[in-house]
Amino acid sequence: MKTLLRLSAVAVALMAISCGETYPYQDRSLSPEERTEDLLGRLTLEQKVSLMSYDSPAIPELGIQQYNWWNEALHGSARNGLATVFPQAISMAASWDDELLLDVFDVASTEQRIKFNTARAGEGATQYNGLTVWTPNINIFRDPRWGRGQETYGEDPYLMTVMGRSVVNGLQGDTDEKYDKLHACLKHFAIHSGPEYERHIFNVEDLSWRDLNETYLYAFEQLIKTTDVQEVMCAYNAYEGKPCCGSDKLLIKILREQWGFDGLVVTDCWAVRDFHTEGCHNIFPNDPASASAMSVRSGADLECGNSYPALVEAVKNGIIPEEELDRALRRVLKARFELGEMDPQNKVKWSKIPSDLLACDEHHELSLKMARETMTLLQNNNAVLPLGRDIRVAVVGPNAADSLVMWGNYNGIPRKTTTVLEGIQAKVGAENVVYAKGCEIAAFATDAGQYSETEGNQHDASVIAGAEGSGAEAFDPQTFADVDVIIYVGGLSPKLEGEEMKVDYKGFKGGDRTSIELPETQREYIAKLAGLDKPLVFVHLSGSAVALAPEAENCDAILQAWYGGQAGGEAVADVLFGDYNPAGRLPVTFYASDADLPHFNDYNMEGHTYRYFKGQPLFPFGHGLSYTTFEYGQAQVADGVITIPVTNAGAMDGDEVVQVYVKAVADVDGPIKSLRGFERVNIKAGETVSVEIPFKADLFNPATGKMEQASGEYIIYYGGTSDEAGLKQITVTL
Amino acid sequence: MKTLLRLSAVAVALMAISCGETYPYQDRSLSPEERTEDLLGRLTLEQKVSLMSYDSPAIPELGIQQYNWWNEALHGSARNGLATVFPQAISMAASWDDELLLDVFDVASTEQRIKFNTARAGEGATQYNGLTVWTPNINIFRDPRWGRGQETYGEDPYLMTVMGRSVVNGLQGDTDEKYDKLHACLKHFAIHSGPEYERHIFNVEDLSWRDLNETYLYAFEQLIKTTDVQEVMCAYNAYEGKPCCGSDKLLIKILREQWGFDGLVVTDCWAVRDFHTEGCHNIFPNDPASASAMSVRSGADLECGNSYPALVEAVKNGIIPEEELDRALRRVLKARFELGEMDPQNKVKWSKIPSDLLACDEHHELSLKMARETMTLLQNNNAVLPLGRDIRVAVVGPNAADSLVMWGNYNGIPRKTTTVLEGIQAKVGAENVVYAKGCEIAAFATDAGQYSETEGNQHDASVIAGAEGSGAEAFDPQTFADVDVIIYVGGLSPKLEGEEMKVDYKGFKGGDRTSIELPETQREYIAKLAGLDKPLVFVHLSGSAVALAPEAENCDAILQAWYGGQAGGEAVADVLFGDYNPAGRLPVTFYASDADLPHFNDYNMEGHTYRYFKGQPLFPFGHGLSYTTFEYGQAQVADGVITIPVTNAGAMDGDEVVQVYVKAVADVDGPIKSLRGFERVNIKAGETVSVEIPFKADLFNPATGKMEQASGEYIIYYGGTSDEAGLKQITVTL
Repeated sequence: MKTLLRLSAVAVALMAISCGETYPYQDRSLSPEERTEDLLGRLTLEQKVSLMSYDSPAIPELGIQQYNWWNEALHGSARNGLATVFPQAISMAASWDDELLLDVFDVASTEQRIKFNTARAGEGATQYNGLTVWTPNINIFRDPRWGRGQETYGEDPYLMTVMGRSVVNGLQGDTDEKYDKLHACLKHFAIHSGPEYERHIFNVEDLSWRDLNETYLYAFEQLIKTTDVQEVMCAYNAYEGKPCCGSDKLLIKILREQWGFDGLVVTDCWAVRDFHTEGCHNIFPNDPASASAMSVRSGADLECGNSYPALVEAVKNGIIPEEELDRALRRVLKARFELGEMDPQNKVKWSKIPSDLLACDEHHELSLKMARETMTLLQNNNAVLPLGRDIRVAVVGPNAADSLVMWGNYNGIPRKTTTVLEGIQAKVGAENVVYAKGCEIAAFATDAGQYSETEGNQHDASVIAGAEGSGAEAFDPQTFADVDVIIYVGGLSPKLEGEEMKVDYKGFKGGDRTSIELPETQREYIAKLAGLDKPLVFVHLSGSAVALAPEAENCDAILQAWYGGQAGGEAVADVLFGDYNPAGRLPVTFYASDADLPHFNDYNMEGHTYRYFKGQPLFPFGHGLSYTTFEYGQAQVADGVITIPVTNAGAMDGDEVVQVYVKAVADVDGPIKSLRGFERVNIKAGETVSVEIPFKADLFNPATGKMEQASGEYIIYYGGTSDEAGLKQITVTL
Repeated sequence: MKTLLRLSAVAVALMAISCGETYPYQDRSLSPEERTEDLLGRLTLEQKVSLMSYDSPAIPELGIQQYNWWNEALHGSARNGLATVFPQAISMAASWDDELLLDVFDVASTEQRIKFNTARAGEGATQYNGLTVWTPNINIFRDPRWGRGQETYGEDPYLMTVMGRSVVNGLQGDTDEKYDKLHACLKHFAIHSGPEYERHIFNVEDLSWRDLNETYLYAFEQLIKTTDVQEVMCAYNAYEGKPCCGSDKLLIKILREQWGFDGLVVTDCWAVRDFHTEGCHNIFPNDPASASAMSVRSGADLECGNSYPALVEAVKNGIIPEEELDRALRRVLKARFELGEMDPQNKVKWSKIPSDLLACDEHHELSLKMARETMTLLQNNNAVLPLGRDIRVAVVGPNAADSLVMWGNYNGIPRKTTTVLEGIQAKVGAENVVYAKGCEIAAFATDAGQYSETEGNQHDASVIAGAEGSGAEAFDPQTFADVDVIIYVGGLSPKLEGEEMKVDYKGFKGGDRTSIELPETQREYIAKLAGLDKPLVFVHLSGSAVALAPEAENCDAILQAWYGGQAGGEAVADVLFGDYNPAGRLPVTFYASDADLPHFNDYNMEGHTYRYFKGQPLFPFGHGLSYTTFEYGQAQVADGVITIPVTNAGAMDGDEVVQVYVKAVADVDGPIKSLRGFERVNIKAGETVSVEIPFKADLFNPATGKMEQASGEYIIYYGGTSDEAGLKQITVTL
């Protein structure tokens, strides 16, 4: 009946146009599907192909406006100037607060809509002004050396899933509306985690079925099945001999047939060019037509790049039938109708968002709240922290006065960024601070040839990646003569680690690292500071795990501050001076040294992450200290819910991140344990709360090869860390 | 006879190949012209077109390697990581030292060859690894608001010519060699100086013949006639209704026929796309074939962009005959043969350059030497400078601890960069320095919509342009309680001004400025500092003139430090503490306020630059103070040489920049005066030297419309500035 009504609606619309009014696809009373079918029938081959490009031109005679699909919102509206800049993704993973994360991406979504509204009223939806954001990056942070790991929610598939769900739901907003607010995109599908410098040619072979499903596909499958996510981006690398954007196994068999994804697949940028370019996959040398045809036939719908224009030739030469383009184009057009991008904006609810919400004070406060929750206290010997106010402080280190380090990558530009130095100066007064850069963040590799391996993208800022890189400075003890405490602010930087970068520092390569040790320039300088016999606090900024064994010896306290966004410096100072009680937890394992790592190119999970690493980490996954202490009582498990009594036994109110890990007793080859539940709770000093955490042991079942909760015996670990010594456990039969 | 020999050489070579050895174009004993003709005859249409692209692919069957023509060396090897970073071009203009500039570009050339040698041994001559550098930018800095003015040698055509000659000769090296070291490129031809945000559509109309020749073409014409410069880049903007890259008047009539240029013309990047793109010139909507044909027919030989591939279609459809492509391709191939790029590198002298010369200590010393010479002391009330050593200093301001500000744009990445703060700390000790950022460099415009007018390039770093931009900070007098002097380090930054940038600060737009006043955040903060009644020194970093009238009132001293390169902070400190006696001179007029400026889009020279500005500047072109004083005696003019006695009447050795301006008495409508000679000389305290400066009054002759020294009466001004009050004069008949 509904269908009949719809059809008649088309008829009415068709009559309308015959009276010289509008085309049916311009009739907002029709469904996106109906409008798509009508429009599809009016497009020439050339027009169809032009609409399958990320930067699709206007078709004035059909009333279609120019639209650029490429937009980013990794941790706030990105690459389009003024916006609220939240902490980098890996930082927010350390908050283990998926509820707050939902608020963050609701704001990011709102600011993106404001950008679109402004642009559509002006030059149009050019790059970074559109409604389709290529966020989140949910590739498992398999190896700490991967420079883009900072864009993810860490090394655990379950944490990635829970946090990723908040990103998708926050960005896409209420799906009950007539028009979608934004479309999110899961990337990079699949099995993509470096090396950056080989991503255009790397091929993942001989991956076990367990690793594929348990680690690399878990978050993708969960989010496609439990959210309304509208886009998936295929990856640069190849899987089983086929580039991911040309892999029918990944894009059709698994994604569409097994998981039922009916959204749009977009290629990573210029990934199809890699199909026909020397030095890359190059399966169709100098033949963009065949390359593009393979990509579309394998399930890709929209290209970020400029190979697809060759599809016109491909169709004319019979390499691919035009009907296959229609299949892809249906998804492209439907999405544009659903977003209201094809309709008069005054008819779209989202166009009414007040533009003064962009980078407003309330959004800044939310960024500060999240930044505080990301702060992860790794070490605090003799409770050197929190610091008192009436002291004279030396603030040193290459990250202390750097505001750009707070932005991570894929960032917007904040109204204001607070550096760590500024945060500390605000607490004790600039006149009580001695500042010196002290040392360089890393030493330049003298072999300029390293560049030749790391020709950078043009679309990011990598051309200026890295500031200075000389060796250690002259060290002058006199500088520290009259200070009470030394705060060293160092670590890594987005100018050292990131996406396919052009950097040339010792221990870094193409955006990745070749060593996870702290750069020697800093290691040596910190050793000198330790020799001064003054309280020494290390504020460590990074988007990935760094081996800090000597620093754990030399420093009294270590605060992992990640890349904290526009309010990062304020949040660091709040923790250092006790205005905020830290509760962030590591979303990645901090290994003790390079010796702990398997080969970077090894996608086999053995030895990777807390689930498969059998050695002793320096700081384990899930680790993070507080200024108070929490005690755990005996947990009860019933009906898929674990109830855990937790007491704040200290004198200060604070948050605790209660973590639940499971291990199937029968699965001897499986992970040591797997996170399957967590909750960040605030507990007042002296109080006890009963934390109820629903969980499902949907682990890899060797018997069936499926991710499922098989009947059997399970050990359930619970506590404030993943470290067995710090966990209680209970064995149950499920 | 010679020709006969050559021909027989070809014959021999042809015999050789018939014996399966080599093609004639591979015979290094033949001339580049002969080799070009042979190779040309072996290329298919598709291959020819592919070689006319900046990113030309390999043709393995012909033994041709991939070669990317795009490289930059604005102030040292650029955009390819590690390199010696010299002061920005406008900074070096302030040195008025063309001899030292020749040394600088000899080093830049050497480091570029090292990059090429390394790359050719590896992945090949990819972008920024080639031997063809698109340097220098010799567009007249017509208006201080133009963000790319920092890339030029200022507002005067003669200064531009003399400095530009050192750039070209330094980069290209000894032309007697069998192979050229590098090829330089004069850009942007022609009449190109903003606005950045209109450069893809701007059209210069109704320009007077005088302005065209006297101002906009003078340096181009002089350098083409007096150097061996090998390339010219045509500009984005249009002239008399035709885009410069499609202007037969500019590229054929003037450049080739009138000036006899026989080198190569390359288009600015994606300038041809502007011919067929909506929102740009769009003279051939969606028709790259016709656009490319027009460009080639108008005199362009090589495209930076991706429209030229349509030339294949253009030839097949008869839009342009293949012979016209051959004309362009001959220049392209000849250049590659001349550079030795087509030959085994072990046969090329330049491949022997030791790679450890890259960013070596000697090159750093040269960068420091040049940085010192660029320092321009604008004001020094009551000789507050130089400062003593035993003092406590407050160093404040948004540029004080910023290393990136030193790099300008189009930069390499130095081994180390010294900030102004670090330079000062090295003089008095970090413990005697109170540092605070104090205020933001500029306030963010709240209207995010500004972006829509300034969609940035992808190939530069503009995506992260600008750090913070909030308003003034809380001001705490306590910070300055126990300091003896306050050094404020502010001004502008490459994150505010530059090439087609995406910034959104009040007073800035698309890389340009809408106001030349100091940003109000800084103006207000400096006023507060002035209220503290302590000696106040303003270290002003910028790549362009800023209106500093209130600051001249509020500050005791103002040092114009430009963008000083990797040693900039050290050079600033050397001047502040008297370890170097400054002698830099302004290459641009520092106007008193916005009110002094004509409309930004007005290319008519009336009211622009010292030659045509009739008001009173705050600091005139050619102005710069010293710690000593120079006295001028009566000059003598004979045989085109002016001899000027100059005495160092002070107590400190120092450099003086002796300037010679001429005015044709009969030319009442002409410039107030025109620079036609200068010399930077070092004079010991108490000594007098006789400075001999050859000059030619080749001014615009209204009677003939030519630039020539007409017979008649001339006033010759000489002294250490362009300010009439500070000049002596002598009237002569030439």
